[in-house]
Amino acid sequence: MVKMGVAHFSGSYSPVPSDTMYSSTLLSKSSIKTSPAFTLNNQVFQTHIPKPLNNNFHSSQPLTLKSLKVRAMDTQEGVPSMPSFDFHGIDQKLVDRMVYDSLVWSSLHGLVVGDKSVQRSGKVPGVGMVHAPFALLPMPFPETHWKLACEVAPIFNELVDRVSLDAKFLQDSLSRTKKADAFTSRLLDIHSKMLDINKKEEIRLGLHRSDYMLDEQTKSLLQIEMNTISSSFAGLSSLVSDLHRSLLDNYGKLLNLDSKRVPGNTAASQFADALAKAWTEYNNPRSTVMVVAQADERNMYDQHWLSSLLKERHNITSIRKTLAEIDAEGELQADGSLIVDGQAISVIYFRAGYTPTDYPSESEWRARLLMEQSSAVKCPSISYHLVGTKKIQQELAKPNVLERFVDNKEDIAKLRKCFAGLWSLDDSDIVNKAIERPELFVMKPQREGGGNNIYGNDVREALKALQKEGTEEDAAYILMQRIFPTVFSTFLLRDGICHKDDAISELGIYGAYLRNKERVIINEQCGYLMRTKVSSSDEGGVAAGFAVLDSLYLT
Amino acid sequence: MVKMGVAHFSGSYSPVPSDTMYSSTLLSKSSIKTSPAFTLNNQVFQTHIPKPLNNNFHSSQPLTLKSLKVRAMDTQEGVPSMPSFDFHGIDQKLVDRMVYDSLVWSSLHGLVVGDKSVQRSGKVPGVGMVHAPFALLPMPFPETHWKLACEVAPIFNELVDRVSLDAKFLQDSLSRTKKADAFTSRLLDIHSKMLDINKKEEIRLGLHRSDYMLDEQTKSLLQIEMNTISSSFAGLSSLVSDLHRSLLDNYGKLLNLDSKRVPGNTAASQFADALAKAWTEYNNPRSTVMVVAQADERNMYDQHWLSSLLKERHNITSIRKTLAEIDAEGELQADGSLIVDGQAISVIYFRAGYTPTDYPSESEWRARLLMEQSSAVKCPSISYHLVGTKKIQQELAKPNVLERFVDNKEDIAKLRKCFAGLWSLDDSDIVNKAIERPELFVMKPQREGGGNNIYGNDVREALKALQKEGTEEDAAYILMQRIFPTVFSTFLLRDGICHKDDAISELGIYGAYLRNKERVIINEQCGYLMRTKVSSSDEGGVAAGFAVLDSLYLT
Repeated sequence: MVKMGVAHFSGSYSPVPSDTMYSSTLLSKSSIKTSPAFTLNNQVFQTHIPKPLNNNFHSSQPLTLKSLKVRAMDTQEGVPSMPSFDFHGIDQKLVDRMVYDSLVWSSLHGLVVGDKSVQRSGKVPGVGMVHAPFALLPMPFPETHWKLACEVAPIFNELVDRVSLDAKFLQDSLSRTKKADAFTSRLLDIHSKMLDINKKEEIRLGLHRSDYMLDEQTKSLLQIEMNTISSSFAGLSSLVSDLHRSLLDNYGKLLNLDSKRVPGNTAASQFADALAKAWTEYNNPRSTVMVVAQADERNMYDQHWLSSLLKERHNITSIRKTLAEIDAEGELQADGSLIVDGQAISVIYFRAGYTPTDYPSESEWRARLLMEQSSAVKCPSISYHLVGTKKIQQELAKPNVLERFVDNKEDIAKLRKCFAGLWSLDDSDIVNKAIERPELFVMKPQREGGGNNIYGNDVREALKALQKEGTEEDAAYILMQRIFPTVFSTFLLRDGICHKDDAISELGIYGAYLRNKERVIINEQCGYLMRTKVSSSDEGGVAAGFAVLDSLYLT
Repeated sequence: MVKMGVAHFSGSYSPVPSDTMYSSTLLSKSSIKTSPAFTLNNQVFQTHIPKPLNNNFHSSQPLTLKSLKVRAMDTQEGVPSMPSFDFHGIDQKLVDRMVYDSLVWSSLHGLVVGDKSVQRSGKVPGVGMVHAPFALLPMPFPETHWKLACEVAPIFNELVDRVSLDAKFLQDSLSRTKKADAFTSRLLDIHSKMLDINKKEEIRLGLHRSDYMLDEQTKSLLQIEMNTISSSFAGLSSLVSDLHRSLLDNYGKLLNLDSKRVPGNTAASQFADALAKAWTEYNNPRSTVMVVAQADERNMYDQHWLSSLLKERHNITSIRKTLAEIDAEGELQADGSLIVDGQAISVIYFRAGYTPTDYPSESEWRARLLMEQSSAVKCPSISYHLVGTKKIQQELAKPNVLERFVDNKEDIAKLRKCFAGLWSLDDSDIVNKAIERPELFVMKPQREGGGNNIYGNDVREALKALQKEGTEEDAAYILMQRIFPTVFSTFLLRDGICHKDDAISELGIYGAYLRNKERVIINEQCGYLMRTKVSSSDEGGVAAGFAVLDSLYLT
């Protein structure tokens, strides 16, 4: 168990709240107990929870030294050196000032979420607000890997588009999953219906986020997953980069850190621009963008930032509707256009609908089908959504599959470089290896929404149980190589309290893709999301659920 | 009792919370029960509570009509026509949309306060935030009166400065008050000590706010009071004007309202600029601005906005300290400069120290004296503070007193035009008249911080009690002509809930004044504060405490 350093804020000591960022879920179908989910106000962290391999931080030492030391670690095999932010020498008064300033900054600049402890905070804006959890300082990250991640973003965008056009590949790849996972099955049904009516999506909008971890041992940037629906935190992560730059502008000299090494993050405005361009392509000046939202959404301000930028920068109005409301208020016109609550909808932006719990009744599925049948631009379409499943990710990682969708060999090499080991459970060799060495694997369910990954000995137990059952159940999972990122000590802020702890980070790169028939209008990388969480070796421990928004510091 | 219209927000009906904006206080010395205070997160509304004279709003009518009507009222005696915003025909769906948008806007743009129901919200920034209470739409206000109020701001600034230099006038005018009011007495003691040591204030900074009401019967703009210390809401009121302009940009056509008729409000940046210029005059690049704050301050974001602008626009750092902290950490250097917590202080900006409760022990008085003795620029100095007392306001309203301080006859005429009737309680004629017709008067205590005014029959009872006692107690009060402003129906938002009700408004005009020896560096009007509150005829009713931030719509 890693010892935890708690930074004293305003002179008062507060222990880590034990339950607010932590939730444990059960797989409804298989009843296999999973490891805890990492939730940030309903948005779940998808990352692995490694055992810390590198614990340089000694929390038992007193905080007395006057300045922060940036120390270069050993390099190996030509990989650039990575400085470790050594916080055990940082002046506590300086930390207190930065904590106070950053909390004020968050409040004045809309870096906020709904507070779980306030009942209405997920429904009514403006009440029960609390600063979004964030890291006090950016996480060091090698510039070469950052550049690589940015570089592959447009290639991934295009890959998603190409794969989405191969309906047979999608249906075939997911055919076994369909039998084992009811949610994927319903999505595939809609996909089939669209094939039956020969539905064409001329304007195709993707707002993706590709998530990576930097593997400590291989020094390689490995993709965790590709999000093609409801890629969250574009709004808030842009603000965290601004916050960190502002803090380093004020305190950077004392810390020997340069604010210019925090990359600018225009994810929010670029996503808003992409939505606006899709609206323009649809070409109905009286139409509106519809945000499909969950009824209770504590991460609403992240979404409101996009709507606000859409209005301020492009004078385009957006409305928010739940799937149930769309079922009740939506109708298709004879020409295929969608009217919801009396308003013509040109662009449908999904911030709900990615997880089974978003479809508690047939009403929600009717709404999803209705939207898919319409001529509105869907972000994402059902086929884009399916491309984002773990199974497709795993299929694409197989030999010679990328070649079916990407022409350029250099591009293929770049993508493949990011692929972690991915296997289906019908590969008995790999299943046996995972039973033998479960610590090297993660077992992942198909579903988005995360938090259902299986780690450690649970992998062995789950695989054995599936072998015994001998059903199609195994098709609901894939196996993935477990990634062990570098551990850094950092300061994590939540609920006004600053905690010092060892942590690991996951980098998400946003990408926007817009195409109208053969004309590609946008294909670009759009800022980033850095998420950092406590790397407790005690996977079941309460501290493990503590994850925050972050930015990166190029090294 | 005025019936109250409640706008349904997001389909749910919520009654007015009965206690959160309402507080009743007792006068500690006289034990005369006063009418309820109107508090907005510790900042008390100083205004009169009139009985509504003009109740055009029929809340019992259903909200069905499709557009808002702006109706011109009868004009009289050449006073410009004043449109009444007639909200009983407004489309409920439009209101709901504007309410939602405005709540989102507040959250993203830092129009927030600490939530009373969250314990830490006055101490720790970033937790327990809620949107500041505000009116959904700006209040109509005649442009001529607006211009007059702006025009007299620099004259009032200069008047404060001139009066502050006349130590004998201050001491003499307040000599009787000194015996009756312990708080004023302590301030006068500090003032005397400064006279004894012949303390010179070369750099003089005033950040004032002159508050007015528009009297319905006389159509005149009458000054309620002049705030020379801790003039609040410069930060948040600037945002409310932006919010209203943004709403009218989006919905103005539907409402037949033009966003350009909401005057721009740069109070926050102008106040920050004035603090920066005072810092520059003090001429110590390593020095900092000190905000003297209350330990528990739910209106902290209003203050943080000024500090934030000071940093962003001028790269000047500020620190926040309570009076007790200043007593513990402050020391005077041999050259008169002030060091607090190891930092040189060039400008002291008081957002505490204006009310007796800010001085619970001798420690706070020591801090006040320490600061006054220092060479730091005090905003305000003890003499500026004293000029803002009700007694001085009343003295200045006497015949031939203004002439002692202002040379220009036109300026004198303009100031006098704004003066309401003000009398001391040693004027037995006026006391008898007030006992006879108490509804025409307000009885006001010396102290700032408000909420202790006496109205209606309580005026009669209080005056009779004072006559019986025959002590110096009467010197703790002044009598003021009661002002009856026009009543408008409006939408008030608090805690995410929209209420429709009849309301009255008070206009505050900010002014900044900076002088170094004989050189006047700043003397300007700096934006405005509009406050609107429910005008219930039931003065003791719970709805009466409901006051919100507003802006104005020029008519």
